[in-house]
Amino acid sequence: MKYGVIGVGAIGGYYGSKLAHDGQEVHFLSHSDYQFVKEKGMQIDSCDGSFHIDRPNVYCQPADMPPCDVVLVGLKTINNHLLKELLPPMLHERTLVVLIQNGIGVEDDVQTMFPNVQLAAGLAFICSAKTEPGRVNHQCYGQINLGNFSCRDQSLLQQVADDFNHSGVKAGLVEYHEARWKKAVWNMPFNGMTVALHTQTDLLLKNPSTRQLIREQMMEVITTARHLGVKNIDGTFADKMIEMTDEMVPYSPSMRLDYDFHRPMEIGYLYTRPLQIAREAGHPMPKLEMLEAELRFLGDEQQKQ
Amino acid sequence: MKYGVIGVGAIGGYYGSKLAHDGQEVHFLSHSDYQFVKEKGMQIDSCDGSFHIDRPNVYCQPADMPPCDVVLVGLKTINNHLLKELLPPMLHERTLVVLIQNGIGVEDDVQTMFPNVQLAAGLAFICSAKTEPGRVNHQCYGQINLGNFSCRDQSLLQQVADDFNHSGVKAGLVEYHEARWKKAVWNMPFNGMTVALHTQTDLLLKNPSTRQLIREQMMEVITTARHLGVKNIDGTFADKMIEMTDEMVPYSPSMRLDYDFHRPMEIGYLYTRPLQIAREAGHPMPKLEMLEAELRFLGDEQQKQ
Repeated sequence: MKYGVIGVGAIGGYYGSKLAHDGQEVHFLSHSDYQFVKEKGMQIDSCDGSFHIDRPNVYCQPADMPPCDVVLVGLKTINNHLLKELLPPMLHERTLVVLIQNGIGVEDDVQTMFPNVQLAAGLAFICSAKTEPGRVNHQCYGQINLGNFSCRDQSLLQQVADDFNHSGVKAGLVEYHEARWKKAVWNMPFNGMTVALHTQTDLLLKNPSTRQLIREQMMEVITTARHLGVKNIDGTFADKMIEMTDEMVPYSPSMRLDYDFHRPMEIGYLYTRPLQIAREAGHPMPKLEMLEAELRFLGDEQQKQ
Repeated sequence: MKYGVIGVGAIGGYYGSKLAHDGQEVHFLSHSDYQFVKEKGMQIDSCDGSFHIDRPNVYCQPADMPPCDVVLVGLKTINNHLLKELLPPMLHERTLVVLIQNGIGVEDDVQTMFPNVQLAAGLAFICSAKTEPGRVNHQCYGQINLGNFSCRDQSLLQQVADDFNHSGVKAGLVEYHEARWKKAVWNMPFNGMTVALHTQTDLLLKNPSTRQLIREQMMEVITTARHLGVKNIDGTFADKMIEMTDEMVPYSPSMRLDYDFHRPMEIGYLYTRPLQIAREAGHPMPKLEMLEAELRFLGDEQQKQ
């Protein structure tokens, strides 16, 4: 199995390095960190045991990448338009592309770009961040679930899960729609609210007003998801997500980090797209619509500075 | 006519001084600014012509106030529980109390405290602020509309309007419910949103996302108001309010000033009460519910500091 990895940040850097450290053949594509990683390798500071990849296969030009059996995409979704140029050299007839990204609708749009490519969603439950070039800090969790979007070869997807498990990353196969929407139940309230109120998960849940608001926003997602046919999801799932977050360390989700570091936020796939789907389904999500407007405002104002 | 005025800030200080300057007998009750106003008088810096009241009748003890025919209440609603002690010395059998305050439900609660007192709402359309003790800066507008809540003597209310008009303050009589709810159409979106996004009216309207959000929040209020029987209110009123605000100078509503100066915000009558009324009427206002939760969070976090 030849693995390609696009991006050497918190996601691509971590999951790709875990596979490489386990002996898999992994080829990394990196734009900004290429020179550093080429010379110094990749350092993973991890709660599960830190390690270093001395000489990773790293490339800065897409054309230099070999065709791969599996490509892990660790880009931010705001850069997905780049896939048109980045992906083709890495594809052969049966390449599986795993989009380890947040949001709803990502696979649909990539499938439109590449109608024949096999796609899966990679749902990462991980607290990790790139702290400097070639260095990822993995604080906790780490599981990745794979949801089949258009993979014709189920055994290939199973092989990826097996490889992850062998490398020490918990991985499993999940139903695509259920998994994407269940992840949105956590992502949509917490990513935006930590930006809008400039806070962290713990304070949002300690305050009774925002604790209730977070639950109501979760219920907006759950109501839409149920209407779209997602099974095994109701109010108890919201309670479970809240209780799980109660037990987490105070946490700044990726959107809060993006905002703090003046990077563009992933509003499109995290809000605009699911909100549109919800409206079209006749189940608008008014509180999350308001959150989207607040995020657009905050992002636009930050751009002006 | 004997006028009593509770509070010498942006509202009580301005409207009371206008009447006093016009020759009316006005008695001011002031807690924190008593000594200053007693010695130095009241300075009104006004776009309509500045003036000074050299020797206002000012008192620091409610018991020293004379019974008045009309009492103008310029307190923040968060201090309305104080009325139980402040008002009684100023009341005679036919005293009219005018609550120049923001929000929904204020008169109901004061009426419960004083079942027999005559009450009216004073709806002030004014940009003014207390800049230092005994000094009010009146930037623009200034009209006050009087809505009869429980005044048995319509001619008394008319007299107050006439006195205001004579003093140079535009005043008129309006239908109570319609006026309170119409004011809420502007107040509920702009007061809270300028706090939540730490901005001013102009930027909220220049950004297409928040411009639309503001209009949707206005429509939530309008829908509830119509359901409660308020006439002459529909989407065109929201458009009118937005256009009016487009033409205003960039403005920080009173709640934004309260928040910036670490004073408690008037969340109760501006949000909690109308939201409860809306829910009970079967027309919840989800976006304004979310705004209330955000304001509670921000206020609570500020208190902790």
